Parts: sequence; C-alpha cells; structure tokens
Amino acid sequence: MSTQIKFLGIGAFEITLHDGRVVLIDPCLEANPASPVKVADLEQVDLVLVTHLAEDHLGDAAAIARNFQCPVVCGKEVKYFLRCHGVDPDQIRVVPWHGQVNPLGIRVRSVPSMHASVGLAPDGQWLSGPPMGFILYAAEDCRIYHSGDSAIFSDLKLIGQLYRPNVGLLCACELEDEYLHSVGLKDHYGNEMSGDEGALAAMWLGLEYALCCHYLDPDGRADVEKFVSMLVSEEGPTPVVLRPGEVFIYPHMD
Amino acid sequence: MSTQIKFLGIGAFEITLHDGRVVLIDPCLEANPASPVKVADLEQVDLVLVTHLAEDHLGDAAAIARNFQCPVVCGKEVKYFLRCHGVDPDQIRVVPWHGQVNPLGIRVRSVPSMHASVGLAPDGQWLSGPPMGFILYAAEDCRIYHSGDSAIFSDLKLIGQLYRPNVGLLCACELEDEYLHSVGLKDHYGNEMSGDEGALAAMWLGLEYALCCHYLDPDGRADVEKFVSMLVSEEGPTPVVLRPGEVFIYPHMD
Amino acid sequence: MSTQIKFLGIGAFEITLHDGRVVLIDPCLEANPASPVKVADLEQVDLVLVTHLAEDHLGDAAAIARNFQCPVVCGKEVKYFLRCHGVDPDQIRVVPWHGQVNPLGIRVRSVPSMHASVGLAPDGQWLSGPPMGFILYAAEDCRIYHSGDSAIFSDLKLIGQLYRPNVGLLCACELEDEYLHSVGLKDHYGNEMSGDEGALAAMWLGLEYALCCHYLDPDGRADVEKFVSMLVSEEGPTPVVLRPGEVFIYPHMD
Repeated sequence: MSTQIKFLGIGAFEITLHDGRVVLIDPCLEANPASPVKVADLEQVDLVLVTHLAEDHLGDAAAIARNFQCPVVCGKEVKYFLRCHGVDPDQIRVVPWHGQVNPLGIRVRSVPSMHASVGLAPDGQWLSGPPMGFILYAAEDCRIYHSGDSAIFSDLKLIGQLYRPNVGLLCACELEDEYLHSVGLKDHYGNEMSGDEGALAAMWLGLEYALCCHYLDPDGRADVEKFVSMLVSEEGPTPVVLRPGEVFIYPHMD
Repeated sequence: MSTQIKFLGIGAFEITLHDGRVVLIDPCLEANPASPVKVADLEQVDLVLVTHLAEDHLGDAAAIARNFQCPVVCGKEVKYFLRCHGVDPDQIRVVPWHGQVNPLGIRVRSVPSMHASVGLAPDGQWLSGPPMGFILYAAEDCRIYHSGDSAIFSDLKLIGQLYRPNVGLLCACELEDEYLHSVGLKDHYGNEMSGDEGALAAMWLGLEYALCCHYLDPDGRADVEKFVSMLVSEEGPTPVVLRPGEVFIYPHMD
Repeated sequence: MSTQIKFLGIGAFEITLHDGRVVLIDPCLEANPASPVKVADLEQVDLVLVTHLAEDHLGDAAAIARNFQCPVVCGKEVKYFLRCHGVDPDQIRVVPWHGQVNPLGIRVRSVPSMHASVGLAPDGQWLSGPPMGFILYAAEDCRIYHSGDSAIFSDLKLIGQLYRPNVGLLCACELEDEYLHSVGLKDHYGNEMSGDEGALAAMWLGLEYALCCHYLDPDGRADVEKFVSMLVSEEGPTPVVLRPGEVFIYPHMD
C-alpha cells in the first residue's frame, strides 16, 4: 500500500497511488528546465490538480488534460483558462476552499492558500479566483498536503488539526535567479514562503514528513538549508529534500 | 421587539424586523426547489443582502431589487452583475469587510468569508471580488450572523469577540446530490463547511442560537445531525434546525 | 540615519530615506482635498508603492510613474491598470504576499490586507487581485508597515513576530462624510478598520510608534480619539496623529 511521490522541479509532483493510478499536481513540465519528464513522456495520468493560475504551477495542465481526458481539480478561474485551451468542461471539478471532490474515487480537498490566482486568459479576459492548496487522500495512512505557493498563515494549524495531513509538499524556496529573470521577474528578494517559514508551516500542520520544493536544484540554496536545519533543531517533521526526478515513498523506510 | 427569521431553503432567509420591515439574505427563490416563496409571492422587501456571486446565493436579487426599488448590500463584483440585470446602481451599497452601512437606518456589517465570489457577468465579463458574511443588527439584542458559504477559519473567534453576534445562520451542510447534479456539479464529497465545522464555528462566534442551513430538507442529513449533536454534547449554542418555510423568533421562548 | 515620514492625507505618505531618496505610498494627491502636495509639486520620487486598486489609494500612481520613470511595487491587477495608463511594464515589480523585492536596493515586503483590490480598467476590463499592506525597510532600525485599508485580522500578530515592523501607518479612521458623498458612497456607518481596532492592530504588530491615518483632518474624529486613548490606556505603542503636511521623524526625539 505504498504511495510514490516523484518530484519534477518547481512545484510539480507525480504521485503514484498504491493501485497504480497517477495524480499530477501543478504539472509545469515544458517551461520547467529541471523537469526530467516532458508532456510527451507521460504514459499515464488519471487526475490533475492545479493550485492556481500561474505559469510555473498551471504549466501544461491543458495539454495533459486533453491528452488523457482525465479529470482536473481546480478553481473556477482555472476552469475558464483551461476551456480556452480546449479542455472539455465536463472533465473539470471546481472545488471551493475546504470542499472535497472524489473523481474516480480519489478524494481531494481544497484548502486556502494565501496567494493569488490571477492573470489573462488567451481571449484577453482578466481572470481571478481562489488560490488553493490541496490535501490528496492518497491512501488510508497517507494524506498529502501541497501548499500551492501559499505564504505562511496561522490557520495552517487549523488545517492540521481538522484534516491531519502527514506528508507535506511545501513551496518554501525562492526560485533560481536565472529562472526568475527568464520569466521577467526583477529585483526579487525572497520567496512568498521562505525556508524557515516553510519549516514553521510544517510544524503547524503536524506533518510526519516535510518535503521542501519550489527550486530547480536544491544544492547550496539558503532556503533549503534553513528548512532542514530548523526542522532538525526543533525536532519537527522529518525534512526531505529531493532532486528533480527523485522519488519519496510513503510509508518511508529510514 | 421580536425578530422573525424565516428560512427559505439553501442559504435564503426572510427576516422581519420588529417594526415590520423585511430584509432578505441570499434570496435564491426561483432556482431553489425548497423555497415556499417565489419572487411573485413577495409583498414587501425593504433591504437585500447578497453574500457572493453564486447562483444559489445571489439568486433573484436583481429581480427583487428592481421590483421593490430597495437598497442592496453587497460587494463591488455583485454590483456589476446586478447593474447588468437592470438594477439602478444608486440602490446598491458596496461595503468592504468589517465596514458597515445603514441604509434606511438598518445597520449591516460585512465580515470576511473564506470562499470565492467569481463568475461571468451577462456581458461576458469575468467578475471576482470579496465574498462576505454579514452581521445584521436586527434589534438592540439581536445581531444575526450569516456565514455566506464560508469555510471555517479561526478569525470567527475575533468576529465573535469584536461584534458579538448572538444568532447565527450557518451554511454547514452539503446540498442534496440531486440539486448538485442539476447545476452540473459532479463528484462532490463534502461541503465547504461540514456540520461539525459549523458547530465549531458557532462556538467560536459565541452565539446563543445556531441555525444550520444550506439544504433543501434537513431530514436524515449527516451534516445536520453532526451540527446538532456536537453543539449539544459540547454544551455550545442552542442548535436550531428549520424546514423551509419555518420561522425562528428571537427572543426565543423555549 | 533618520527617516522622514510626511503624511499627505487619506493613506498617502511621502517617506524620505536617510540617503535622500523618496518613496511614495498610496499617492492619491489630485483627488485628495487634504494633500498639500499635488503631482506637479513633486520634485523627486524614487519608488512608488500601491496597496490596492482604489481611487483613494492608487491615486496618481500612473502619472507619477510616468513622470519619474521610477519603479512601482504593486499587485498584478494594479500593473494591468497602470499599463492602461501608459506606465512602462518594465518599471513595475509585482510582488506576492510575504514576498519581497528590492528595486534600487530599497527592500519592500508585501503582506496580506483583508480588503479587496477590484474595479474597472480604462479599457473596460474588470480587474481583481490581492490587496496588500507593505513593510518598507527604510533603515536598519526603521521598518514601516502600511495597512493599505485592511480590516483587522489575527495574523497581524504573526506579521509582527516574523517581520517586526516598528512604525505603523494604520488606515483606522472613517473618511469624512463629505468626501465619501463626493465619491458616491452613501449610508457608510464605519470604516473597515475602526480607531480602536487600529489600536489593537498596532499592539498585535508590536509597533513602537503607531500613526493613525485615513482622514482629511484629525480634529474631532471619534476614530482618532479612540485610537489614541486605547493605546494610551493599554500602554501600547506610542500613538502619533499628524495633520496633512506634517512630518514624523524616526528615530523620534520625545
């Protein structure tokens, strides 16, 4: 009954459930220089989760949804965007914060993200909607939280108490300068969730394992070092740092 | 000096103040199979409150506002929508979170709702704005909170401390499957506020009476049962469960 | 190494750093009857911060950005609006909540504001995005928080703990009735942050000095009186009340 969590760089994850079904979260593959997997490489996708309308998270959700005709869980503004890109609206499951859906019997809960989900649709429409995190109920004992670019906020404690996620995927690292410049972002001075804030979030959520993400390469990144060292020194959740392409398996054998 | 609170199904309420004036909250009547009152049946409406831009809450606000030429309290995005449907913008009172307005001397406060208020206007414009709850100061001793589809959040405690609502209308039940299917929602697996979360919210708000809503018929609904049983077992606010058409009168004689 | 904070009425401030550079926050000057400074009077502007898309806060940001070719820090929806008004997008630094930018080496952090940033662009597009507060790292010992029309919320305590702002500019006063009427707002009954809520916010942030704002003239305003009296009676941060045109210098000599 193990769940495999493969990191694909930035905030993208490919999660293989114990029964072999594959869930993608924030599948930015083509514009993600770190991803070892591109859209053409995907052989099976059963469900896609999109946290918010941003190129580095929404990524290739439209192409993947068209290719695999699979359900997509997201907000209403992402639905609008995906429709513009030819995704059949019948595939899309809009879910409000704290609401749940179970397409194909795979249970997913949306939780608030302190971020934004805004931008232009291909037809020139300005879109805005609720940015989200997710809890994917991957197995009886494996509830995976994805932060979806959220800043830290105190109700992560409430989310932890109510829904008890035990594995967390925390976007708690500033993306590499080269990447930020390539997408036109200048003068960035720190991520919406820093490494130590990510560690704090992991403790508030009451996780068992906390995976840091939102980087192309973890080596020498100050946020990653702070994330790990704070969790170790505070005896919090076990920190996990993956390189793109690496897999974390739960239950984990230390 | 009694206040009458008549439930109309889903999140719709008709509140009759002690002086006979009538306030409607989230007046979804025509598309609400449970409402015993339709737009043509309304004889008096003095004020309309709209929590957010969703068919099952905004409902028939435009037609009612046109018919009765009464003020409407809502967010800016709902104002845009109502204008498209022919409501005179001079009738509309936009109010920000925690701000207050008193059209006709009826005091109303907007409070945050952890939800979304998004969707298309009739002219094709994508709208988004702040989803809200309300506190209606119905009488000196009767401050009515409406949750407006909010998920639970810890600052309900703050709202309770600052503004001391004593009667709460909590959208804490998943709508019936048939209704959800009829509006195109598939694979729903739980409401944005479950019954036990609604009970917790009622306690955090420090209510005296907690009315559960967001259903067509309360019979046999698990959320309603949890709402009631948790409030009873925790010795919290007195739970109240109304059928559509039933009236709760405050002050209440037990 | 002193920082000069000049109040210009409503939520507008001109902050002169120790090295002579000038930062404007929410520069509503032309439509602000209290501002002693109009756009044509400005001699130097190095950076503009805009909390949200509202006429009384965004104000003349577009004209100022065009005149001085300086960077503007804001949300994506404000960027869209400014572009419509001829501002070069290369000047604009979009920053998410809790993220930081440092244009020209001036460090600025965005923090959440419990408000809304919505409205029409000049091209008819409905815009919406994340309303923000700011922390301006004006000097080693001077971290200036601007509330940007936020309602009170408990995570101001978290912002205080994480980022330790010591000077606060709090929009905690209802604007004058005449002004509200002039912009079409009727039946207002209280600001999104009242004077006593502003005082509570100042204490939660752990400020050293708390400047009240969001008025044209502080004389005889109940919110201002409550702000000051509550901070004094609770032995909280030192309250500061400026008239438009007056300057507060930090470090402050009592």
